[in-house]
Amino acid sequence: MAIQEFSSFKREHKKLINLMPLQTGGILTDAAREALLEFADGYSTCDFCLGNLCNITNPPIKNFVHEILPEFLGCDVATITHGAREGKFMVMHCLTNPGDTIIIDSNRHYTTIVAAERAGLNLIQVPSSGYPEFSINVDDYIPLIEKHHPKLILLTYPDGNYGNLSDARRLGEVAQEYDVPYILNGAYAVGRMPINMMEIGADFIIGSAHKSTASAGPCGVLGMKRKWEDILLRRSAVYKSKEVELLGCTVRGAPLLTFMASFPYVKERINRWHEQVAKAQWFSNELENLGLKQLGEKPHQHDLLHFDAPAFYEISQHVREKGYFLYKELKKRGIWGLKPGLSKSFKISTFAASKEQLGFVIGSFRDLLTEYHR
Amino acid sequence: MAIQEFSSFKREHKKLINLMPLQTGGILTDAAREALLEFADGYSTCDFCLGNLCNITNPPIKNFVHEILPEFLGCDVATITHGAREGKFMVMHCLTNPGDTIIIDSNRHYTTIVAAERAGLNLIQVPSSGYPEFSINVDDYIPLIEKHHPKLILLTYPDGNYGNLSDARRLGEVAQEYDVPYILNGAYAVGRMPINMMEIGADFIIGSAHKSTASAGPCGVLGMKRKWEDILLRRSAVYKSKEVELLGCTVRGAPLLTFMASFPYVKERINRWHEQVAKAQWFSNELENLGLKQLGEKPHQHDLLHFDAPAFYEISQHVREKGYFLYKELKKRGIWGLKPGLSKSFKISTFAASKEQLGFVIGSFRDLLTEYHR
Repeated sequence: MAIQEFSSFKREHKKLINLMPLQTGGILTDAAREALLEFADGYSTCDFCLGNLCNITNPPIKNFVHEILPEFLGCDVATITHGAREGKFMVMHCLTNPGDTIIIDSNRHYTTIVAAERAGLNLIQVPSSGYPEFSINVDDYIPLIEKHHPKLILLTYPDGNYGNLSDARRLGEVAQEYDVPYILNGAYAVGRMPINMMEIGADFIIGSAHKSTASAGPCGVLGMKRKWEDILLRRSAVYKSKEVELLGCTVRGAPLLTFMASFPYVKERINRWHEQVAKAQWFSNELENLGLKQLGEKPHQHDLLHFDAPAFYEISQHVREKGYFLYKELKKRGIWGLKPGLSKSFKISTFAASKEQLGFVIGSFRDLLTEYHR
Repeated sequence: MAIQEFSSFKREHKKLINLMPLQTGGILTDAAREALLEFADGYSTCDFCLGNLCNITNPPIKNFVHEILPEFLGCDVATITHGAREGKFMVMHCLTNPGDTIIIDSNRHYTTIVAAERAGLNLIQVPSSGYPEFSINVDDYIPLIEKHHPKLILLTYPDGNYGNLSDARRLGEVAQEYDVPYILNGAYAVGRMPINMMEIGADFIIGSAHKSTASAGPCGVLGMKRKWEDILLRRSAVYKSKEVELLGCTVRGAPLLTFMASFPYVKERINRWHEQVAKAQWFSNELENLGLKQLGEKPHQHDLLHFDAPAFYEISQHVREKGYFLYKELKKRGIWGLKPGLSKSFKISTFAASKEQLGFVIGSFRDLLTEYHR
């Protein structure tokens, strides 16, 4: 590729109906788009820095991080991270030593595994119920805690594969009973649905701004109980205003401003979460009526849905494009977000699409089944 | 602050002459601004991801990271980081164990210290010549290497305090002679001036996109010799496409696209580096003619300049605003970038300002000296 071609990049599907689980919670508000342009230049967040990103008052990062986010997350202390995975690694790196064991749910995001590998940890995974619900019974943590004496436990809430919401609050009781620090990975929860760390009884709550708070990437949040502040946010012995685990500052750029600018909208949209759940359940029902099968918990409590689609898989066996036919046909109709190549089983998020748009998606699935089965 | 106020943030000094060392190399090109808006939404880089950020072909991240950046940096392998500090920590985390010793220059950025603290390392600092040049004689690494057997050595090139360019190439010979891995922190070099890792003989080269390649933050680059690839970019045992030390992917967002979109311009501007040096030397001379004293090496070889300004300090002792008078007076004249409160000694970068603008800055300094000394 000639170097000149590096000066113009376009996303071809910007105006399409977006069903991609990674993306539906990260679409910017107009306010965030303005903030992005305003703080576009490198190190623009640092105009009035006095030594610590989270204490900057212009723009009002300090108020956002130290007042607004803790109230929003139901935690004592919050800080900004590059995203959920970096938050998970931070906690692991601070609270464990290489060779230690932690216990996680088997529906965990791949980055939980990779963060643990980076920290040199042994992993014990709590199995799910398997096909088709893949649900996690949090009481299954108990015998594993008793056997392995983990340094940490982690629950993915909801998980990114099936959108299952396990009994996080019950696990909070377990964590307290066994006195083991508890990370709640809320990358698909924080910014989409009501969630409160203290009510759940977790020690840490992790959010992804680019995934679920209408923000540009990379940006995330880590909330914690006060008792962990001195460990997680310990200061440098040499530079007293610099937090070691954050390497001084994390998101020194525009994505943090989009997180802040979208926040009033995000805080408000959470109040309408029950509408999101109703929409997801209706959509799931309609697709099941077409012969698809929703995996994960039912009735589903989250916009992230996973479907088995045997009828589409059968079609893929007889068409030139194989599994890609589904992606292509949907894109032709203005629908975006199914992973190219997948037809047998795929994930969809109903979060960003209106009910009318989802009706069109359902109709498109129906048409494709009719058309290809002629 | 009311939550509604979080929806609109403005930078008041956008149109001012910018002299802030942190910011002068990070001002976006028009192409980068377009890319930023195009890829504003969360996880937009991942539209066509097949499992690894640096292998995405649309947008052409793969070509950028695996072809263009290695050629640009004179390294075998490059990857994307959240910034220079994260690159330094990555190398330290991979190549050392807690308790190990590394040797760094005493002009190092504070994040070198903090990254080493995060990695649990002992630090030996090569002293500079002290006031007024603060130069680093890289041969001073030798006795310290012989005594402490460090796992790594690091040189800041140039340093962020004085803009000194030490003899990085000589240190490359030393590193090879003693077979110790050598990190070149080029946060103020990569994207501003010609620099080539192999010619210098370093093992790692670190760049900051938001600092020096006309990019939004956070974004950076880490280049290395082929021999380090298997360690630094080792894959997960479970997820074969995921690099452990990157936690899978790093800059999953718009800042990477600004780095790419600005790149043709950045590559070209480096050819005019001699003009930048001449401009910095002329500016330094003019300020010295006004009675200020440039610290660091002379004649200066970088746009980052540090001045002692005894005459301004004297004024600050007699005015109501104390040291802030200088910041306020300059801002009134449309000049931005001196740290508010500083008058005795301050840093300036001449990189973003034209010679005409710098002439206006010099005139403003002159006027202030006259005005306040009446």
